Amino acid sequence: MAKKKNADAGVVGLSALELAEAIAKGSVRAVEATEAFLDHIGEQDTRIQAWAHLDPEFALAQAKALDRHREKGHPLGPLHGVPVGIKDIVDVAGLPCENGTPLDAGRRPRKDAAVVTRLREAGAIILGKTVTTELAVFHPGKTRNPHDTSRTPGGSSSGSAAAVAAGMAPLSVGSQTNGSVIRPAAYCGVVGFKPSQGVVSRRGVITQSPTLDTLGGFARTVEDVALLHDAMAGYDEEDRAMRLVARPQLLETARSKPPVQPDFAFVRSPFWEDTEPDLRQGFEELVAELGPRVEQVDLPEVFGKAIDLHSTIHLADIAKNYGRYYDKDREQLSPRLREMVEEGRRILAMDYVSAHDWIEIYNAALDQLLDQYDALITPATTGQALGIETTGKPTFCTLWTFCGVPAVSLPLLVGAEGLPIGVQLIGKRGRDGRLLRTARWLVERLRDESDNQEQGRG
Amino acid sequence: MAKKKNADAGVVGLSALELAEAIAKGSVRAVEATEAFLDHIGEQDTRIQAWAHLDPEFALAQAKALDRHREKGHPLGPLHGVPVGIKDIVDVAGLPCENGTPLDAGRRPRKDAAVVTRLREAGAIILGKTVTTELAVFHPGKTRNPHDTSRTPGGSSSGSAAAVAAGMAPLSVGSQTNGSVIRPAAYCGVVGFKPSQGVVSRRGVITQSPTLDTLGGFARTVEDVALLHDAMAGYDEEDRAMRLVARPQLLETARSKPPVQPDFAFVRSPFWEDTEPDLRQGFEELVAELGPRVEQVDLPEVFGKAIDLHSTIHLADIAKNYGRYYDKDREQLSPRLREMVEEGRRILAMDYVSAHDWIEIYNAALDQLLDQYDALITPATTGQALGIETTGKPTFCTLWTFCGVPAVSLPLLVGAEGLPIGVQLIGKRGRDGRLLRTARWLVERLRDESDNQEQGRG
Repeated sequence: MAKKKNADAGVVGLSALELAEAIAKGSVRAVEATEAFLDHIGEQDTRIQAWAHLDPEFALAQAKALDRHREKGHPLGPLHGVPVGIKDIVDVAGLPCENGTPLDAGRRPRKDAAVVTRLREAGAIILGKTVTTELAVFHPGKTRNPHDTSRTPGGSSSGSAAAVAAGMAPLSVGSQTNGSVIRPAAYCGVVGFKPSQGVVSRRGVITQSPTLDTLGGFARTVEDVALLHDAMAGYDEEDRAMRLVARPQLLETARSKPPVQPDFAFVRSPFWEDTEPDLRQGFEELVAELGPRVEQVDLPEVFGKAIDLHSTIHLADIAKNYGRYYDKDREQLSPRLREMVEEGRRILAMDYVSAHDWIEIYNAALDQLLDQYDALITPATTGQALGIETTGKPTFCTLWTFCGVPAVSLPLLVGAEGLPIGVQLIGKRGRDGRLLRTARWLVERLRDESDNQEQGRG
Repeated sequence: MAKKKNADAGVVGLSALELAEAIAKGSVRAVEATEAFLDHIGEQDTRIQAWAHLDPEFALAQAKALDRHREKGHPLGPLHGVPVGIKDIVDVAGLPCENGTPLDAGRRPRKDAAVVTRLREAGAIILGKTVTTELAVFHPGKTRNPHDTSRTPGGSSSGSAAAVAAGMAPLSVGSQTNGSVIRPAAYCGVVGFKPSQGVVSRRGVITQSPTLDTLGGFARTVEDVALLHDAMAGYDEEDRAMRLVARPQLLETARSKPPVQPDFAFVRSPFWEDTEPDLRQGFEELVAELGPRVEQVDLPEVFGKAIDLHSTIHLADIAKNYGRYYDKDREQLSPRLREMVEEGRRILAMDYVSAHDWIEIYNAALDQLLDQYDALITPATTGQALGIETTGKPTFCTLWTFCGVPAVSLPLLVGAEGLPIGVQLIGKRGRDGRLLRTARWLVERLRDESDNQEQGRG
């Protein structure tokens, strides 16, 4: 089931960890790596259109500086010379940040977002800006799914997911307010990770909902998303949602062996009936393969309110934060976003505040469940990627975003038409490393299983 | 202008610092101190009615345990044996907590509030519960002003202010969501301190507004409120409004000599015309006495919106948090609180969220002003205490509570009818110790001035 590494692809085929290692030992220069990715983008992106703003000089200047830094013998960050794509709602000084709306055309931030500063400190090359849906909500951007360009890559982090899937960057940063990391990761067949709320600072990122907005990212392996998020994470007192915890050691934890084999709770969720038959079949096979390591669990009925609770907060926050776009020129907003602003403007403060109470109530219940199981296993989407007129439904992500728990989508299944289907794992809030360790265990377990089957057939 | 210590009053006349010192060196036992205060309460409280729940056995049991602790030679906390009154919205295990409403009659919490735990750890004796207005809002409780029992003590921390003013406790805990520490302190002629938002945990205290609720306290001297708040302060991750800062060294800072003589900005505020003539005259004299140390400053016009912004948050939060009382039996709520709930239920989420933005905007402007001046000096109330049908207007407190900046009321003026008038000092958010140091400097400067004048006359 797992994707085999393409040994012929050269630098572009390396994982971020492999590339960082090659650069660290001097077998690849950062400039060479950057040129390889820029060339690959040149070949691929006419078809996929993952990039909103790309300035080869901007990327190469960073690469040259990083090569000089290395040549002088200075210590290197964990991402030294590794190119990263940045969703075009995250400010990068020197590049436009247009937030996926003509109303921000020509916007050029003067300061890096906090997460970009952290990536630079880790030695990453900010390769360019990736396409977002309109203001990171629903209305699709130009990006196509690399597996089938007649399909959506998912949204809102469309370009970030597609860029990694097509090998145009080993790593990319996205964000999730509803299902915007997990869904495109699943549709594009890459690993997408949405950490716990409060782990990554949102300073310098457009605000859609302070409660819900969560930065996350994409890679082709679990280790690579761990590496990426180790660099992205870190306390920032200017982001009031941050929790003061030690910086996670995600890569170290993700690479460690679980003390015992993990146990999974298979949560079909109240939306199971909305899924496509090939997804249901894939999950049944997965559950069968995991055997005694998995039990089917139904969430308490009260979790059924999560979609409404999320919507109350989301729409009110959209009205508050995007009302200025609406008031400036609502004709330039998509009809759906216009309606969301209008609906959000009618939401009452007491409903808004009350909805927030449920975050802790749900987490108390999830904490209990996740004392018994290492992770919940659940769909990431309703099935394979849909057509380009939509970015798909976030239904299978809403509850987890609302709760601020860590979620990872793994490209473990293949649908009836040969397109990837994601398997979503959910962990306890604040236990991001443990979730990634469990995710890595699952990927390897299924790879072994698959190798054994091939051997059996061979 | 400053009050002279009553040497004949024995234990009850001592400041908290003096009492703690006497107990520490063994010249007074905690039991003796507690009995002295209980006796004094017996004499005074029929007239003043500051106490909601008082159980002599509950207080004496703590005192006996503290005396045994001392006799064994264990180290003593800074409040060892000092009795403290606790507003009846703060949970104390073993005493009722009825929140000033018949709808909570008989409520007996099983756990101490976080602030009570901290006070106990510092060695304080939880003497009893003091009267609050209805749910810490406006509707008066039974307490009278010790200076004139036909007048209000102010609210909502009515009992806490009156108890300290009448010598029934050296220290007491109150809370401020609008003007509920500063106003009663001013009306009762004691020192009232509302620290910066996020310094004292509100866990175990009724929630009126998570944004605005601030615990504070009362004493007869600036040093004593510093001592009290050193014990009350401390990070609590369960209170999401807390800011992670080192525990303040308030007493040490308050006692230290300012590096240079402090400068004051006299802020008359947009409500100056609402004040009584004797207050205006008192402030003019004060400003004249301070001479070159004070300049009159007008806040930018945009601060005029503060009352409305505060009200938007306050009413919506009241609707959300007190709606359950309204729904249970609204006839048992005062008409004014009923109206507040009804009005709060109509507030829109986007207005509520937008109002929060102004906290940081205002603080940016205040930070600039407080880079130039050590403190703002401004009225605490419109004048002397009013009659018992009201608890007075919070107008001169609303902005500062909204901004979460530290505020202290000092009993420095006397009105036309011989009743105290408070002088409020405002400091930069997070600089609580410096504000108290400035407050102590002001009290001593005016005491010296007054001594010089008496000598001149003698």
